[in-house]
Amino acid sequence: MGGDHGPCVTVPSAVEYLRHDHSAHIILVGKPEVITKELDALKVTPNSRLTLYPASEIVGMDEHPAFALRNKKDSSMRVALNLVKKGEAQACISAGNTGALLATSRFVLKTISGIDRPALAVVLPTISGHTYVLDLGANINCTAEHLFQFGIMGATLVSSVENKPNPSIGLLNIGEEDIKGNDVVKQAAELFRNSNLNFYGNIEGDDIYRGTTNVVVCDGFVGNVALKTSEGLAQMLASYLREEFKRSLFSKLAGLVSLPVINAFRRRVDHRRYNGASLLGLRGTVIKSHGSADSFAFHCAIKRAVDEIRGDTLHRLIEHIEVLRHNIEHNVTQPASAK
Amino acid sequence: MGGDHGPCVTVPSAVEYLRHDHSAHIILVGKPEVITKELDALKVTPNSRLTLYPASEIVGMDEHPAFALRNKKDSSMRVALNLVKKGEAQACISAGNTGALLATSRFVLKTISGIDRPALAVVLPTISGHTYVLDLGANINCTAEHLFQFGIMGATLVSSVENKPNPSIGLLNIGEEDIKGNDVVKQAAELFRNSNLNFYGNIEGDDIYRGTTNVVVCDGFVGNVALKTSEGLAQMLASYLREEFKRSLFSKLAGLVSLPVINAFRRRVDHRRYNGASLLGLRGTVIKSHGSADSFAFHCAIKRAVDEIRGDTLHRLIEHIEVLRHNIEHNVTQPASAK
Repeated sequence: MGGDHGPCVTVPSAVEYLRHDHSAHIILVGKPEVITKELDALKVTPNSRLTLYPASEIVGMDEHPAFALRNKKDSSMRVALNLVKKGEAQACISAGNTGALLATSRFVLKTISGIDRPALAVVLPTISGHTYVLDLGANINCTAEHLFQFGIMGATLVSSVENKPNPSIGLLNIGEEDIKGNDVVKQAAELFRNSNLNFYGNIEGDDIYRGTTNVVVCDGFVGNVALKTSEGLAQMLASYLREEFKRSLFSKLAGLVSLPVINAFRRRVDHRRYNGASLLGLRGTVIKSHGSADSFAFHCAIKRAVDEIRGDTLHRLIEHIEVLRHNIEHNVTQPASAK
Repeated sequence: MGGDHGPCVTVPSAVEYLRHDHSAHIILVGKPEVITKELDALKVTPNSRLTLYPASEIVGMDEHPAFALRNKKDSSMRVALNLVKKGEAQACISAGNTGALLATSRFVLKTISGIDRPALAVVLPTISGHTYVLDLGANINCTAEHLFQFGIMGATLVSSVENKPNPSIGLLNIGEEDIKGNDVVKQAAELFRNSNLNFYGNIEGDDIYRGTTNVVVCDGFVGNVALKTSEGLAQMLASYLREEFKRSLFSKLAGLVSLPVINAFRRRVDHRRYNGASLLGLRGTVIKSHGSADSFAFHCAIKRAVDEIRGDTLHRLIEHIEVLRHNIEHNVTQPASAK
């Protein structure tokens, strides 16, 4: 029910997703009359792979998370998370209020033993592929131990959904040297260095899009600023490019000739392809779609949930943390790499 | 003497700058034989507007700031800063080791009364103009009071070099609402709200390039990550665009036709135009050029120093802080806007 557009995006996107993925099953959670109206418009009826689950309330996009948690016990978000908790769904996908989703999923699902706080991880494009960045804003005041846990979660996510053993982890800092950064980052680097994770070391902001490491670890404040700054810069550059191609008759003609090239470029940097942040560290799979997602972007968020389920990210994470804990308790130095 | 290229960039850039600006006087500080060789190659001899001042040592680009401060008492950097201190120069411009420049300038020049820590401010382009962002990495662990001082310094810089009275100040955060962010940012917002500065409120990363405010305030860790992330993204997008225009014979032709447009776009986003970070809060004007600056970029850094001298940034800042202090001490509520 959530997001800037609500069911008129999420319902068609779900229907379309099932046309591509013949073994998935989607449960549409929300107000039955609203969902049915959307399905009617698509000439689709609920079936064995597309079911409807009623929820009478909606969390507003600007509602305070604590208010939603206390008062909206039958919200689509809460009901969907309960389905995950009861094992009736393997993942919850929402385009709704981020703060409410964080608070409610933490309350309903609880964190995995060994993880203090869930983190939001996103995929970002790089010069030669893509990288996973976390945290993107779920955690504002992080300790070194939190950053270390983000590293474990990120590495497990990459190894499970990308089938890439022992992914490299970079710690976002303001210089590569060990002496750089604040105390939290320095202590986190120490934890990484003493672990058997594949720790690359400190990286700088430009290393994100260079793809220097498979995982980029930072606190939620820094990660959120980096991501939003990127969005702003991309918008500015796009606006400049548009203006230059409109400046004169000649440049308009050049724009016309270049249209297929510009379109290929735009497809490649289309941020909708990267939609869907993984909320990691909970006893259940939760994906946060951008509130402004259109049908294609929401499709990508659904795909991300399915990838995590099929990659068994959740159980691998639980296992991975148990191995790390066992090694620490028994002082074992064999590699506890992300399997 | 500093920077990735040394005098073969800085000397020609200084010579070229004086051809454009007929009332400026540049003192080239460093090893006389090296500088003279560069001047000879340009068929230029020292004159009343271009003088030479000897310094026998050079601070290495990777040298530890404390080591440079202790041991390199006749480095070009230190000697140039001494000239500023003695009033023989009105500004020092360096492309050298950033950490050493920060430490040495603070030691030689000292901070303005009322300012705890100097900050690095850069100009960044926006959709409709440009904005000033500080701090960019001089300060890692900032208090609310430091962020507030950055705001005063940024506002004074904008009002003096742009002749823009009462510039707006945005506080970089992860949401616009007052409840967002960590404690330091929340307390800083409170200080701004209780001041008579033109405080816009919290802004997010994308507001930087949107040009929402004239000044963007953040701690040095966040600012450095935001700037470096931007550099990385711009490089990635440029690389993508190049690749798309090279993909086929058709796209190569389209690229050829679009070359004037693409070049106009590149000129517009040319980061060299924004070279030169102001080190604010010292009892003297200091400009840090990017180490990799070429002759054109270094020219822009010289221009920035001259703008600050002509705009009387330093004395306006001293005055502005005195007025603010007076108002706080006497509980005055008249506007103490950046004059």
